[in-house]
Amino acid sequence: MSSAAAPDQSPRPVRFGILGCAAIARKLARAMLLAPGVAVAAVGSRSEEKARLFAADNGLDVATTCLHGTYEALLDDPDVEVVYLPLPTSLHVRWATAAAARGKHVLLEKPTALCAADLDAILAACDAAGVQFMDSTMWMHHPRTAKMRELVDDKDTIGDIKVINSVFSFRANEDFLQNDIRVKPDLDALGTLGDIGWYCIRAILWAVDYELPKTVIALRDPVKNQAGVLLDCGATLYWVDGKTATFNCSFLTNLTMDITLVGTNGTLHVTDFVIPYGEKSAEFHVASKSNFAKLHIGWDPLPSKHVVTTDLPQEALMVQELARLVRNIQDAGGRPEGKWPAITRKTQVVLDAVKASIDKGSEPVEVAS
Amino acid sequence: MSSAAAPDQSPRPVRFGILGCAAIARKLARAMLLAPGVAVAAVGSRSEEKARLFAADNGLDVATTCLHGTYEALLDDPDVEVVYLPLPTSLHVRWATAAAARGKHVLLEKPTALCAADLDAILAACDAAGVQFMDSTMWMHHPRTAKMRELVDDKDTIGDIKVINSVFSFRANEDFLQNDIRVKPDLDALGTLGDIGWYCIRAILWAVDYELPKTVIALRDPVKNQAGVLLDCGATLYWVDGKTATFNCSFLTNLTMDITLVGTNGTLHVTDFVIPYGEKSAEFHVASKSNFAKLHIGWDPLPSKHVVTTDLPQEALMVQELARLVRNIQDAGGRPEGKWPAITRKTQVVLDAVKASIDKGSEPVEVAS
Repeated sequence: MSSAAAPDQSPRPVRFGILGCAAIARKLARAMLLAPGVAVAAVGSRSEEKARLFAADNGLDVATTCLHGTYEALLDDPDVEVVYLPLPTSLHVRWATAAAARGKHVLLEKPTALCAADLDAILAACDAAGVQFMDSTMWMHHPRTAKMRELVDDKDTIGDIKVINSVFSFRANEDFLQNDIRVKPDLDALGTLGDIGWYCIRAILWAVDYELPKTVIALRDPVKNQAGVLLDCGATLYWVDGKTATFNCSFLTNLTMDITLVGTNGTLHVTDFVIPYGEKSAEFHVASKSNFAKLHIGWDPLPSKHVVTTDLPQEALMVQELARLVRNIQDAGGRPEGKWPAITRKTQVVLDAVKASIDKGSEPVEVAS
Repeated sequence: MSSAAAPDQSPRPVRFGILGCAAIARKLARAMLLAPGVAVAAVGSRSEEKARLFAADNGLDVATTCLHGTYEALLDDPDVEVVYLPLPTSLHVRWATAAAARGKHVLLEKPTALCAADLDAILAACDAAGVQFMDSTMWMHHPRTAKMRELVDDKDTIGDIKVINSVFSFRANEDFLQNDIRVKPDLDALGTLGDIGWYCIRAILWAVDYELPKTVIALRDPVKNQAGVLLDCGATLYWVDGKTATFNCSFLTNLTMDITLVGTNGTLHVTDFVIPYGEKSAEFHVASKSNFAKLHIGWDPLPSKHVVTTDLPQEALMVQELARLVRNIQDAGGRPEGKWPAITRKTQVVLDAVKASIDKGSEPVEVAS
């Protein structure tokens, strides 16, 4: 009955360090402020002034947040437990391995690496250090995704998935197409394939419970900029059992975020899978065991709309989950959760195969296991 | 002021003859009863008894409807102006050319022919006879389709279409898979490609205002039955300007009827394009000039839902439109409307190319013009 027996109601928060002040880091800083059990301990940039401006602009407490003028200084900060790394992809191997080597857990922006071999270096460093690795694919953490998973896993509802289509595109403006790191061969050489094709590939793998396809064939006529960076591309993925998935990703067409799953028993549609239309609730539609109405003048039953609400946005749920895994390792002697690096690697392996097929003029490429 | 000056409020209806009592003919018989200015003059079957049963079962007036025990007798019936032809595809050339030769206008079920050369024989017969040809692709006549056309044509809303995805599938039962004419090589040799891939190809062509693709590549691993008839297949279509379309059609997966168009300015989704969920109203969704909300935590603006209502179902609107064209030829000395055979032919030409690519193991096939 003593108070000592009561669980700690407000455990020490898990302390994140933000390494680099990319635009996406603003969204993550907000998420860290929103997520219970998470704190921003430090911001590291190429100058302390930039770190200070970032902190001030994003609602961080400048008095209590350590502001580092070099990336190294942030990594050396003993107060930082998890490093969030939104740097250009070409810098991921260097800084993610450095973070792991210092015993920091790693939250890595996508695409996680320029190729699977690079990713393997990062994952090996995390493994050697016993730290948690997670990529920053936010929609994985939305409760809608869990609800869709439940229905996809229920073979009665969807049955065996046979066809998957995914599209992610946004219409980049001229400034983006000239200056963004995602169109620069020395920074994000994978262009639209790495930036947003990543999500399509992840969605496809998610749908099939991460079974790797056997063969990948890029769509013809990908669009590249003058430096050879992909602006628009796609591919079809083939599994040994006949499942087929096609995706398109583009910086050149209107904002679109589709997953369509067609199974033997049911069909699922979601049109805002990466970033829901709004933060508080998100929808998807499922048609199951749909028949033609008599005389084929309609459908029976009709598809149903599923609405999933959430108090916290998906990116806050993501950092909260990472914090939970970190505490489990620290306090309960747990091992890092292997699911996250495993699905990162599968995504990267398929991405590699798509890139190889593009480079070979849409020849079929076998997916490495 | 005399009554003779008033327009005829109830002109003589255009008289249809139904040639064959296929299941789909029941839906068309209903449509002919619903459509103003249309009448069912006759039913022809392989026995008069079958014709009588069909008429009785489908609300036709057995006293006034001519019941023919042979197809020839229906074609020779001077009271029939338009022949609706729902026979198996392998019989289309014979009976459609025979109908045209007798001066009958032709409403032909899809797929219109086993290949474009066969269709050309039908179209030549119609052309020589000066009769109207129309294929029975009902959704073309829904006012929703006209509304979508308007938005697609408005370059500000959708812009240049770059990606088109279409899926049409239904889960056939065991009886269908064993016995339906659509799985029989001597009746509907094109299987799922002809029966429902037809709609996907038409949707894709419709979206691009009937510009033919340059190249077609079938998806790998089509599923065929033991007789070699397609049960599940698909293809990617490529245009010279970089547009890409992918479709899947299957007898093996849940009822699904999708068109997704992604353009430079906007995105259109419709999930019941062939047969709307209900008869009285139909929806589609358009996102135009969509942006990420600040910090990428949502969308701004949100997509909008468009609802189009109709008093008559699309198949009634189809026969009504055909009747209008027939009257225009008969009463106003008009020529047959060339749009309908032209889009039929383009659909068949692309279908031929897909079939050729399937037969060549998914090699690229150039589309004949």
